[in-house]
Amino acid sequence: MSPIPGLQRVGLLGGGVIGGGWAARFLLNGVDVQLFDPDPEAPRKIGEVLANARRATTKLVMPSLPPEGVLRFVSTPEEAATGVDFVQESAPERLELKQDLLRRASTAAGPDVVFGSSTSGLLPSLLQEGMRFPERLVVGHPFNPVYLLPLVEVCGGAVTSVAAADRAVAVYESLGMHPLRLAKEIDGFVADRLMEALWREALWLVNDGVATAEEIDDAIRFGAGLRWSFMGTFLVYRVAGGEAGMRHFMAQFGPTLHWPWTKLMDVPELTDELLDRLVAQSDDQAAGRSIRELEVLRDDCLIAVMQGLRTVGFGAGEVLDRYERQLFGRSPAPAVILGGGPIRIHECTVPTEWVDYNGHTNDSRYMQLSSEAGDRFLRHIGMDAAYLESGRSFFTVESHINYLAQSTAGDRLYVTIQLISHDEKRMRLFTAMHRADDDSMVATAEHMMLHVDTRLDRASPTDPLILDRLAVIGAQHDLLALPAQAGRAIGQRRDA
Amino acid sequence: MSPIPGLQRVGLLGGGVIGGGWAARFLLNGVDVQLFDPDPEAPRKIGEVLANARRATTKLVMPSLPPEGVLRFVSTPEEAATGVDFVQESAPERLELKQDLLRRASTAAGPDVVFGSSTSGLLPSLLQEGMRFPERLVVGHPFNPVYLLPLVEVCGGAVTSVAAADRAVAVYESLGMHPLRLAKEIDGFVADRLMEALWREALWLVNDGVATAEEIDDAIRFGAGLRWSFMGTFLVYRVAGGEAGMRHFMAQFGPTLHWPWTKLMDVPELTDELLDRLVAQSDDQAAGRSIRELEVLRDDCLIAVMQGLRTVGFGAGEVLDRYERQLFGRSPAPAVILGGGPIRIHECTVPTEWVDYNGHTNDSRYMQLSSEAGDRFLRHIGMDAAYLESGRSFFTVESHINYLAQSTAGDRLYVTIQLISHDEKRMRLFTAMHRADDDSMVATAEHMMLHVDTRLDRASPTDPLILDRLAVIGAQHDLLALPAQAGRAIGQRRDA
Repeated sequence: MSPIPGLQRVGLLGGGVIGGGWAARFLLNGVDVQLFDPDPEAPRKIGEVLANARRATTKLVMPSLPPEGVLRFVSTPEEAATGVDFVQESAPERLELKQDLLRRASTAAGPDVVFGSSTSGLLPSLLQEGMRFPERLVVGHPFNPVYLLPLVEVCGGAVTSVAAADRAVAVYESLGMHPLRLAKEIDGFVADRLMEALWREALWLVNDGVATAEEIDDAIRFGAGLRWSFMGTFLVYRVAGGEAGMRHFMAQFGPTLHWPWTKLMDVPELTDELLDRLVAQSDDQAAGRSIRELEVLRDDCLIAVMQGLRTVGFGAGEVLDRYERQLFGRSPAPAVILGGGPIRIHECTVPTEWVDYNGHTNDSRYMQLSSEAGDRFLRHIGMDAAYLESGRSFFTVESHINYLAQSTAGDRLYVTIQLISHDEKRMRLFTAMHRADDDSMVATAEHMMLHVDTRLDRASPTDPLILDRLAVIGAQHDLLALPAQAGRAIGQRRDA
Repeated sequence: MSPIPGLQRVGLLGGGVIGGGWAARFLLNGVDVQLFDPDPEAPRKIGEVLANARRATTKLVMPSLPPEGVLRFVSTPEEAATGVDFVQESAPERLELKQDLLRRASTAAGPDVVFGSSTSGLLPSLLQEGMRFPERLVVGHPFNPVYLLPLVEVCGGAVTSVAAADRAVAVYESLGMHPLRLAKEIDGFVADRLMEALWREALWLVNDGVATAEEIDDAIRFGAGLRWSFMGTFLVYRVAGGEAGMRHFMAQFGPTLHWPWTKLMDVPELTDELLDRLVAQSDDQAAGRSIRELEVLRDDCLIAVMQGLRTVGFGAGEVLDRYERQLFGRSPAPAVILGGGPIRIHECTVPTEWVDYNGHTNDSRYMQLSSEAGDRFLRHIGMDAAYLESGRSFFTVESHINYLAQSTAGDRLYVTIQLISHDEKRMRLFTAMHRADDDSMVATAEHMMLHVDTRLDRASPTDPLILDRLAVIGAQHDLLALPAQAGRAIGQRRDA
């Protein structure tokens, strides 16, 4: 059961780098995937993309992800499109191939199912030819790595309906992406035309021996590339124009457009010699790092940049913030059985990065686990995205933690929570972290939470609806014994 | 007295956006500046750039900056170049004007003083014509904002000496920049040619009504621009090529170079109509934000991106790391608390990933910070790799934490540690986490540590050498008052 309304299962046509990225985006958002790719290596390749994506997405977002969707490989495009809510095509860039796949899949999909094509440059008007209900085809052109980059260009063809484009935009947004809706159909759309212009010039510079691949890359990533990660070229130039603004900037720099600054008239011939030079320079630049290592490096950098921009609340940081709120709001208030005892509220498998030099889960990670359990409890009693938006939240003011045993990477842990006491503004919570294999306790924690008005940054009364829920839980938990570790102070005797 | 050897004072020719940025870079690194600019508004404009730069640089780097250099306005280029160690020219892009300034300044500067020109595209061979000792002229082309972006293209002309280029590179590196040394002189150098190619295509897209300025910017900043902030286009494409590498990528995408994806043959005519459209779209995009507001937004984003990349240690993050080490090395030895008070043991800048949906550092991260401080204390008292190897370690058995105030990404925190008590097997530590800007406490934590035999997994006596060190610290810390938060239990009254 997908947590995204109206998006339980999707059909994917093609499972290469882009198709695998889409599979990961959907699966990690809890959507089931039916994938068609004739390549016998597809399952292995997608498994690798998915492993990268799982690691990266978990690192990127703070809320826990929904239970992963189920990936199923099918043997025809028709099967892929049967019984799904959306189809995304990511086959190689050959018009006839894509047309054939889309046509076949369109005969099997329900009439309202929208099709997105990942094409980098083929016109949607051509792609939709021959499809059953061609009005439902839009281009939804993503960027590599699809599981991290927010941009997806959405572009309709001659007969595409507005409703189809609306639906594609809604689907992509639910995956944490930023759809850019294009008004006009054009070869290469917008982003690739811009990239292509830069790439062409870069090839000329290598061809003419002006600079190496690494020098050209450095000329981007230490300069304009840093700005382009949050402001495009127009806004950057506006700011550069200073007080006098855009008109001044154009007056000052417009004439340089006619200077001999770019190779306008032609494309460098991709001779064997140029190709060899490019490959050799690219090898130098990679300095022995494998593609897998470079992918992890790229993903870690993207995560760092997007999380950085999140603190400023601008550009991709704004998209990430919106996505996290969606995830938080979507995560089902945990299914909880109020059987009188402490509530089993959270579980996890200990990740490798939690393990420290002692070979065990680092002490601070139990606090993190308990804190996550507390967040889920808050969600359970009714604190959702709208509540946060209204300027109200719970802040932790004091915590106490007891370490009872060890755990290590791969261990399955679960957390129970007990409401020790509460009043209008405060809540005292006790969590116990257990090993799933033998139910033994590895750690306990206790938290005093204060309800705050986040705008005034001071204590404030909890919403009556939340207090009602707390009252129900409290009535049960008041009957429980105070846990041995509750109310302890450091320095107290262990048997006290 | 500048903290950079051989760089006490520089002469600047021109004090616009670029010249002002250079002034800020030099001054904030403790170098005195003599600046010539005939514009009567120059002092005001530079004051504004300097205020932006001061705020941004302080936020960017962790070490404290050296005492600011002294800025002096002079009335001729000759005066600017008198008695200085380096000259940087940043006049408007008119060849005769630059040649005249450089020639006049070169008559006043000592014969060994190297001249850098900020020109975006004029050839150094032309700029050095007429100079006294023309071999000392190099292009040192920076990018806006000069006080934040690391890139500076260094390019010599026909008669430039290697020593002059070496000197310019050393000067720029001492300011925390990344000089990119170009082998060949070419109009527009490398970075501007790449930017110009993209810009030209962007103007065509507006001209043809395909997309607006804002849409074009979005096509960059939500996609390729995020990647370009740390990897240039060659390395990105290598990774995109997947396992098959660069040759495969070129084979697959090389042919698209001949597709009609860019407007190759011409430059759009900058008619009044196109100019009006550009200005109107740019105004829409700015949405009422002033240039000053946009500058601050841009700088905050750049800082967040570079600090983000610093956590990965790649690209601009690597440059920032090197710069911070330089600043550390250059600043006087930090005051070490040797006797009496709690030991200042650890510091950090709050990373972006520590911030949760409340917009503050997540509670569990203070436990992590305190735990890190505890680790540093353990190393300080002699627990090293060999000690761990011998099957002995300290485990935390219980922690208590009090949250007193908030912090957020970019905040600088430091941690002090106090030894409350210890015996042969146990150690009670108290940490206090402070904001570096005003020394206020944001959180405190208390830990009970147990010395264990890690093979038997049971308590064991601490090594006598470590006990000796603890005894020395204990003798001092026994005289300190017990912190108010020590020995607290959850549920205890706050004033208890």
